[in-house]
Amino acid sequence: MLISKSFIPILKNNPSEAKIKSHQLMLRVGMIKQSSAGIYSWLPLGFKVMKKIEKIVREEQNKIGAQEILMPTIQSSEIWKESGRYEDYGEEMLRIKDRQDREMLYGPTNEELVTDIFRSSLKSYKSLPQLLYHIQWKFRDEIRPRFGIMRCREFFMKDAYSFDINDEEAFFSYNKFFLSYLKTFKRLNLTAIPMAADTGPIGGNLSHEFIILAETGESKIFTDKRVFDLNSDGTNLEKKSLEDLRKKYEQFYSVTDEKFNKEEFEKQVSEQNRLITKGIEVGHIFYFGDKYSKPMGASVDLPGGKKDFVKMGSYGIGVSRLVGAIIEAKYDEKNEVMKWPISVAPYDIAIIPMMNKNDNSILDKSNKISLELENNGIETIIDDTDENLSSKIKKMNLIGAPYQIIIGKKTEGEILEFQEVGKEPQKISLKEIIKILKEQKVKN
Amino acid sequence: MLISKSFIPILKNNPSEAKIKSHQLMLRVGMIKQSSAGIYSWLPLGFKVMKKIEKIVREEQNKIGAQEILMPTIQSSEIWKESGRYEDYGEEMLRIKDRQDREMLYGPTNEELVTDIFRSSLKSYKSLPQLLYHIQWKFRDEIRPRFGIMRCREFFMKDAYSFDINDEEAFFSYNKFFLSYLKTFKRLNLTAIPMAADTGPIGGNLSHEFIILAETGESKIFTDKRVFDLNSDGTNLEKKSLEDLRKKYEQFYSVTDEKFNKEEFEKQVSEQNRLITKGIEVGHIFYFGDKYSKPMGASVDLPGGKKDFVKMGSYGIGVSRLVGAIIEAKYDEKNEVMKWPISVAPYDIAIIPMMNKNDNSILDKSNKISLELENNGIETIIDDTDENLSSKIKKMNLIGAPYQIIIGKKTEGEILEFQEVGKEPQKISLKEIIKILKEQKVKN
Repeated sequence: MLISKSFIPILKNNPSEAKIKSHQLMLRVGMIKQSSAGIYSWLPLGFKVMKKIEKIVREEQNKIGAQEILMPTIQSSEIWKESGRYEDYGEEMLRIKDRQDREMLYGPTNEELVTDIFRSSLKSYKSLPQLLYHIQWKFRDEIRPRFGIMRCREFFMKDAYSFDINDEEAFFSYNKFFLSYLKTFKRLNLTAIPMAADTGPIGGNLSHEFIILAETGESKIFTDKRVFDLNSDGTNLEKKSLEDLRKKYEQFYSVTDEKFNKEEFEKQVSEQNRLITKGIEVGHIFYFGDKYSKPMGASVDLPGGKKDFVKMGSYGIGVSRLVGAIIEAKYDEKNEVMKWPISVAPYDIAIIPMMNKNDNSILDKSNKISLELENNGIETIIDDTDENLSSKIKKMNLIGAPYQIIIGKKTEGEILEFQEVGKEPQKISLKEIIKILKEQKVKN
Repeated sequence: MLISKSFIPILKNNPSEAKIKSHQLMLRVGMIKQSSAGIYSWLPLGFKVMKKIEKIVREEQNKIGAQEILMPTIQSSEIWKESGRYEDYGEEMLRIKDRQDREMLYGPTNEELVTDIFRSSLKSYKSLPQLLYHIQWKFRDEIRPRFGIMRCREFFMKDAYSFDINDEEAFFSYNKFFLSYLKTFKRLNLTAIPMAADTGPIGGNLSHEFIILAETGESKIFTDKRVFDLNSDGTNLEKKSLEDLRKKYEQFYSVTDEKFNKEEFEKQVSEQNRLITKGIEVGHIFYFGDKYSKPMGASVDLPGGKKDFVKMGSYGIGVSRLVGAIIEAKYDEKNEVMKWPISVAPYDIAIIPMMNKNDNSILDKSNKISLELENNGIETIIDDTDENLSSKIKKMNLIGAPYQIIIGKKTEGEILEFQEVGKEPQKISLKEIIKILKEQKVKN
């Protein structure tokens, strides 16, 4: 992609209205544009990143056997009255009357709708377990939307729902998502820690928030530092293995604000291991048994001839929010350098040629290099504007392709000036560059 | 995928509320479920088909150099007041008041929003042309939603927008989409004919609807039969080649109801070539110059120092509607056989084993075959229920994988009973089956 042909509207300076670095960067390099309070359009650069995050989230859902569906954004109020949440939800729910004066709403979450789908579709325990998910726009009418897409009104979310015959099987499903979430965030190059959390308006009595550390986070967290050394390596999709994984994490104190108990914290965590800091919630999982299936009558026939309400959980990941969360975690705002993890980078590599009005050979060379890279599945962007090299490098540092090739007057023959952002430049051939990038892309 | 583990709720009989065959089939095999009037959830089977259509639409947009963005579903009324359409649009627009009492709406289309994005992003003719598209949910509050997802309220649509410096360049953009649409529908195995059409609430003076023939269509069409023999083979993305393509189509009379003129029709079309029938609109393209850019002040600096309003067009494809349109075109309702084009089939091949409670060997064999096929990129579904072979074949005929393997008692060794739906069964090896399917998948 030539930057002169792309739709990447870049601002010279940080926009004054943005208070946190993800919001600043996203406006600065034209990833998003606000269309009204708390509502954004995603321009090509931001869209590319969000789509890559979505793909990773989807792949990790499929790996645990979840099936993808797509529920509508607009829901009838009827099912929310059945569950009893219509009144409870408060003003964050965007309520709508259609032209026939029917009470509708823009879904902030989908427990009711998916329960309605389940109850009219499946009737026997033989069809269980069922894990269903969708990735869809949601709306929460925040009173004070702020921080760009981190606390906005219309947002893109993956929400999954599990249906099981009893608690034991339901915990098995819960733990599958627990593993899936750790793997998802790892592929995004984020260290997300599952923390015991409050269940809020979703309900239930078992819940974990997945939190990444960030000074700008809105969640206050209290943890045992040692939890950051854990990972899910070696866990497989069997009951025992998944239980062990959760136990491994739960041995260390690690909670959000709402669950914090000073006495417990100080008793369980030695002073040198205590960490009190802030974080960003990127995922949240819940187990709530028959909270929705009972009032809505979602039951299955059991082996003996009896019926029982299905046991349900729900599992959310903020897909659009993750774009901002990754920036909060990775953007070096002092040096104005963003290095996207290659798994979600808008482009894998930036080609930065020194342009010369009277000589097209450098641009021709750049186009050739780009074509060769693209043919190898490596996404490129060429800065073909007539700015000087140093300002182009600054711009590309913001756009955030993790690798750069700089083509100046002195670049002759096969050897190129190649740099992984933040590391020393190297002089190597295009063939070697392709090898390095392909390896990185496979690994991530 | 084992059908016993899948979420494919199949009905025994055609649902009485469905009047047309796409609606019948989609409810019958659990592709969709209605959640309220004119609003549907997409269950796994329907979702898979829609996603494959979306992918083809996306690929063909990218091929003409369009860049993907994503605009929100909820828009502010302000920009619609600027364009003058806020009052005009009527009750089909779902109007919403948020908690701050601001007038919002659920976008039925995005000319205003994309014009707003353009005007605040690009300022120079040097950045033109720009082709932007998004694939997003839209809402039209139909007074009488009917025919399932064919005339529903919440629907999934690709809409693209072009921005050019003058009419000549704008027609070039228009013609790129003209070609792109012909290619898109061809990949979906549909014969869609571009027909001169009215511009309706979008405005402008040049417009084509892309129509496929179907008795249940809501558009009445009048054409010269010979238009069906045309195709876009040999056209490339150059001005002259694209102009020739449009001329080739426009030499034959071919219009919708609103543009129909009896005298002209009879003058231009000899009696034996006249075709008066019904069709389904699957795409619609418009050129409207500065209809939005002028009132909204979207201008660019021209070479000489002057400014001018950009010339715009818009280009829609009904992605969710296409699922229904393909069924209307391909479903043989008399024999209850649906054969999906392999490019969008929910599964490439169905494996239909005869089950035996006391002997797992046939199911084991099916699983092995399935694994081998999946490893070759071929999507399979196994009917592992204990129904008899004939009712399983009937069920799979409705689900619509274009190929079937039947594994009965007599299936021994390497030779399998393989059938392309609607053709004669063959006895061939798995290796040969893989070869046939791979070839078909590459071709389509």
